[in-house]
Amino acid sequence: MARVWLPYADLEEAARRLGGLPDGLEVDCWTADTDETPASTAEVEMVVLPYLRPGSERVLAGLPALRVAQTLTAGVDDVAPYVPAHVTLCNAAGVHDASTAELALALMLASGRHLDEFARHQEQGRWRRRFGTALADRRVLILGYGGIGAAIEARLRPFEVASVTRVARRARTEPPVHATTELSALLPEADVLVVIAPLTDETRGIVDAAALARLPDGALVVNVARGPLVDTDALLAETSSGRLHAALDVTDPEPLPADHPLWHVPNVLISPHVGGASTAFFPRADRMIAEQVRRFARGEPLANVVRRPS
Amino acid sequence: MARVWLPYADLEEAARRLGGLPDGLEVDCWTADTDETPASTAEVEMVVLPYLRPGSERVLAGLPALRVAQTLTAGVDDVAPYVPAHVTLCNAAGVHDASTAELALALMLASGRHLDEFARHQEQGRWRRRFGTALADRRVLILGYGGIGAAIEARLRPFEVASVTRVARRARTEPPVHATTELSALLPEADVLVVIAPLTDETRGIVDAAALARLPDGALVVNVARGPLVDTDALLAETSSGRLHAALDVTDPEPLPADHPLWHVPNVLISPHVGGASTAFFPRADRMIAEQVRRFARGEPLANVVRRPS
Repeated sequence: MARVWLPYADLEEAARRLGGLPDGLEVDCWTADTDETPASTAEVEMVVLPYLRPGSERVLAGLPALRVAQTLTAGVDDVAPYVPAHVTLCNAAGVHDASTAELALALMLASGRHLDEFARHQEQGRWRRRFGTALADRRVLILGYGGIGAAIEARLRPFEVASVTRVARRARTEPPVHATTELSALLPEADVLVVIAPLTDETRGIVDAAALARLPDGALVVNVARGPLVDTDALLAETSSGRLHAALDVTDPEPLPADHPLWHVPNVLISPHVGGASTAFFPRADRMIAEQVRRFARGEPLANVVRRPS
Repeated sequence: MARVWLPYADLEEAARRLGGLPDGLEVDCWTADTDETPASTAEVEMVVLPYLRPGSERVLAGLPALRVAQTLTAGVDDVAPYVPAHVTLCNAAGVHDASTAELALALMLASGRHLDEFARHQEQGRWRRRFGTALADRRVLILGYGGIGAAIEARLRPFEVASVTRVARRARTEPPVHATTELSALLPEADVLVVIAPLTDETRGIVDAAALARLPDGALVVNVARGPLVDTDALLAETSSGRLHAALDVTDPEPLPADHPLWHVPNVLISPHVGGASTAFFPRADRMIAEQVRRFARGEPLANVVRRPS
């Protein structure tokens, strides 16, 4: 029987969260809480990497029977270099849609309504009203239109936004999606730019000084994807001048160093890369793992394959 | 011709924002930026009270020809005592739905995802991740189901909440609304309690110590209505112990005094009564005023009448 490593504390937790242990597989539990891995390094054929355990991917190279590496993240840029070429790499597409889309809305709304400023006033016991910028009537551009982009759009719709424009690598119809080649022409009409594209060689620095300069005065840049999609120095300049606002869950570099000037720009709200880190994660991750392990056990095609063996 | 006071700086602004000046009426402009009123105190028959100008309602008693007082707020508890008995009082139902519903969502999301804590860490240049509580999968109870309550529900729906329960003064169907007599029985199933009922003799203190005690551990209380709907001391006790969380746009007393202990409870997020104070206000207020003034000029029944002449 094939052996898998699952990211649960013990078999009891695995059975409870998966609705029973998977048929036809031997299961070892591995949460990377310690440096120790399960003893079955010679036999394990599929590993589900624990969530929020940076470095756990380094064990993959030492597993000779490994055929499938499954992440619990949507982005695999950190993990991919450690996955041997003969191993299928799968991501957690879908698992973080709800949590990350929520955070995107939270950042947009909190920035527009000055909740960050009010939180700081709270420490001083200071009741100081300030008129806010609503999401209603604003034109939103979503850059990156996979599952999370669509989940952000669904949540935006009832807020009476003036329009939602979608931009992704390839133009599509139903719903209409513009190609990134059109991005520059679309930016002057965007009051809110939400960045949720994957980090690739093509998207690195896509929101650079020239792109930011095309946004209208007072526009808000939201990044819930990866820091290097946005040119940090250019964003620092445009927010320090007061022309643009930003609400960022990711930065470049990351973590943002304590002495980085971006921390102290009044128009900038920063959360420490917590897009997927919410209670929405667990039930969605469990459902994805249960289904993926079932497919693996039966030899069916896996879901969410981002890199096949070469 | 009947005379009205409209809350614009001058006739040019009034014409621009209303899409032309109203036919068949004399218009004076009054924004309450100074203590001076227009000179036409003897003739004015309808006054639209300026927004966010506390005290402006005190002039109403000195206007002998007044027939209609129109507020730009949804709640009229502050204004009603100053409106003579022979005057029709109209509120701004609908005008604040988008802005206030947005703020309710902003408070819920910011509280669950710790954006207040991150804003304070930002001042120290501190990158400290913290797992959040998502809105997804949570059971929400909306107490008060007028226009704003319905607008909150519409915005909640795409967030994959487990359920939305509606409670209002009278039970209804389509959609099902429970009567407040059932509130106590429903609270143990509410992970998020959103308070958006009007302040009346019946609702004052409706969320008291007994009600709070029936909420499950970890529940979040959101108040975007009026402070006195919630018993402040009881809420202080339940949040100070860490059992409940709160996100409040309104407090009792208000403004919250600088030395009030509620400011410093870690589980409590406070915004300074800014539910309606956003850019969403202007276009919606202008549409309402234009329609109401048109009805007044033609002698048609007014909208949003909350108290008829007695």
